[in-house]
Amino acid sequence: MPECNNIYSDKKTVTVNGREYQWPVQSTVVVCFDGCDPQYIDAASQAGLIPNLDKMRGSGFAGKALASMPTFTNPNNVSIVCGVSPNVHGVSGNFYFDRETGKDVMMVDSSPVRAPTLLSAFSRAGAKVVAITAKDKLRKALGKDLDGIAFSAEKANDATEAENGIGNVEALVGRSAPDQYSADLSLFVLDAGITLLETTRPDICYLSLSDYVQHKHAPNDPQALEFMVAVDQRLGKMLSLGARLGIVADHGMSDMADAGGNPRIVYLSDLLDEAFGAGKCRVICPITDPFVRHHGALGGFIRIHLMAPDIAIHDVLNFVRNIPGVALALPRDEACLMFEVADDREGDIAVVAIKGVALGAGKADHDLSQLSGARLRSHGSLTEQVVPFITSIPVKADPTHRLRNFDIFFALLNEAI
Amino acid sequence: MPECNNIYSDKKTVTVNGREYQWPVQSTVVVCFDGCDPQYIDAASQAGLIPNLDKMRGSGFAGKALASMPTFTNPNNVSIVCGVSPNVHGVSGNFYFDRETGKDVMMVDSSPVRAPTLLSAFSRAGAKVVAITAKDKLRKALGKDLDGIAFSAEKANDATEAENGIGNVEALVGRSAPDQYSADLSLFVLDAGITLLETTRPDICYLSLSDYVQHKHAPNDPQALEFMVAVDQRLGKMLSLGARLGIVADHGMSDMADAGGNPRIVYLSDLLDEAFGAGKCRVICPITDPFVRHHGALGGFIRIHLMAPDIAIHDVLNFVRNIPGVALALPRDEACLMFEVADDREGDIAVVAIKGVALGAGKADHDLSQLSGARLRSHGSLTEQVVPFITSIPVKADPTHRLRNFDIFFALLNEAI
Repeated sequence: MPECNNIYSDKKTVTVNGREYQWPVQSTVVVCFDGCDPQYIDAASQAGLIPNLDKMRGSGFAGKALASMPTFTNPNNVSIVCGVSPNVHGVSGNFYFDRETGKDVMMVDSSPVRAPTLLSAFSRAGAKVVAITAKDKLRKALGKDLDGIAFSAEKANDATEAENGIGNVEALVGRSAPDQYSADLSLFVLDAGITLLETTRPDICYLSLSDYVQHKHAPNDPQALEFMVAVDQRLGKMLSLGARLGIVADHGMSDMADAGGNPRIVYLSDLLDEAFGAGKCRVICPITDPFVRHHGALGGFIRIHLMAPDIAIHDVLNFVRNIPGVALALPRDEACLMFEVADDREGDIAVVAIKGVALGAGKADHDLSQLSGARLRSHGSLTEQVVPFITSIPVKADPTHRLRNFDIFFALLNEAI
Repeated sequence: MPECNNIYSDKKTVTVNGREYQWPVQSTVVVCFDGCDPQYIDAASQAGLIPNLDKMRGSGFAGKALASMPTFTNPNNVSIVCGVSPNVHGVSGNFYFDRETGKDVMMVDSSPVRAPTLLSAFSRAGAKVVAITAKDKLRKALGKDLDGIAFSAEKANDATEAENGIGNVEALVGRSAPDQYSADLSLFVLDAGITLLETTRPDICYLSLSDYVQHKHAPNDPQALEFMVAVDQRLGKMLSLGARLGIVADHGMSDMADAGGNPRIVYLSDLLDEAFGAGKCRVICPITDPFVRHHGALGGFIRIHLMAPDIAIHDVLNFVRNIPGVALALPRDEACLMFEVADDREGDIAVVAIKGVALGAGKADHDLSQLSGARLRSHGSLTEQVVPFITSIPVKADPTHRLRNFDIFFALLNEAI
């Protein structure tokens, strides 16, 4: 065990955000399988295509866990590496409206992350830590204060020792950085992780994939099954290298098109403008990010900010609650309580869709041509909150504990049986 | 401090269901204000009618907390006296279908309660404990293993030393046991609590009211305001007697009628029979109890049991999710995870309504004449999950903790500041 050089650690444990983690006894790898609805695993398993995942499920632990709300990538990845919910770390979306400045904020780095990550805490306690993400904006967030290796597949060719703790990543992995709209973006993350497992043997390794495949393909589509095969082979490789492996997802994935293939979308901004006057209610789609080609910034959760003093929140709540396709509309305090979101990172109203329906701002705000005729598949709602929770070792399973995806490091490090 | 005579206690604390409670330093009273949606308090406070509650909110703690799902009386009362969620104590409704026996079970006593209550634990550790409920079936559940006083307003005239730890309750309170369909049923509970505070000074006192008034009257109705005044006066009396007081609710309350006053009801059993064949899907309304006059066994949550092997759960889920008025339909494992319900006490599918809509079994199963022309007001859904959480003393408020109504005893006993 390495010497400790940090207040977080007493040589045997590292405490961060109120949770005390045991020091890893073997290379401990968490894969955040972006958008991996449990149905993807079920479909591939039934087709006999994922022997390594099946083996983990048989001899380790196979459960389901709740993702954080809203079920988007950033809040959940940050929750997993912090080991706590969004009300602690402050990240509630990819995109938000800052009430203090009156400006829209796109999350492109770690600035909205206001809790330490367990990756940084372990690295500062002397552990060898690796974080690899599909997209670089997430690497910047998860790499906060990390004294180790952190890079993205997207910007693999730009990685440097100074910025990322490692250079020449393409040479290391043996191929070029993949296109950001490709299944290979995720496979590159896993291959880079395998290479580092073989070479530097990190104590803690976090591998965060992309949901490009799941946005485009249903669980039984050949392309989805092919992707599951490719991921499974890489998980097998990691297991053969002696890794203790945990797999969770940041969110599930739902089909949001009708029988004719047309996306089922409620354009809330248009409806609100019509009911209350143009611009009185501002709709924020927190799924918005620079990579919209596979979902058109459409998901199952939006936020409303009331922009005029003459708008009564009760009237807006009543109106929104009765729009077909809306499951739940909550004022800020109730949304924060129910979804464990920080008060200053929530809208005046949070709106959750029913399964199979997307919530948008205005029709003009979403470019559906980006879907290229594919069925809309997306996430964000309560109905994509249940995700796989699989570990390569048996872990304590308390049936009365509401398992969360952000319990995965704790389970791997502390709850082996 | 009394001598300890029980393994639960080390003379200073009592541990039950994994939570360690400090011994009460003054008479500690929790009022479960049945059906007290936060709006009742807001309305009465704005009208200047509840000075004692306002004083508590000003100088103590005034927050909101989440009730347990489904938001019915029994799961929440049992959660509050056990200090934990329904997956620990097993009570998930007033009425359920026992999959093992194939029979409907009406909860009329403590037999479904499979965790110790903190009332029993404190009583066995030597504390003087009092539990008074509106209805007797709940008294039987909450009085499980209680070595103290436990009786109901409903059966006040039947209370005996042997069964209830006290007799002659009507004489003690100074009036007859009230009608079970009356506001006075709740006031009798409070008056009995006051009398016992004056005489026996219990260490722990739990007072559970009835939601008769809230089912019949909206927050600004004169009858609701009048009831708030009567409750507030009694809370003031308890404070003047030196009680440390905490107030929570078991659930909120929503109007479920349209502009014309007609109840908005989705009769799921009828729709399922039509879609899948008669009797293939069994709908259970867990709000059902012998006291249906104020809600007609209609609430915002029902369970579906699949009664035929040829029914595919996926088809039923898809069908139910697209019924207007349904917010969420979850298979058992997801419902148990999301709502912290025990696996054997959940249906094959759990269905949650949108705000303002009731879910029923068949039209023939519900006697709407029981409403006597009043608007339907009820609960059961996610939208009645947010309830008041008020204490007479300042308590630690951790903004990152998802406060639950069943934290109230812990807050009063352990978190005074």
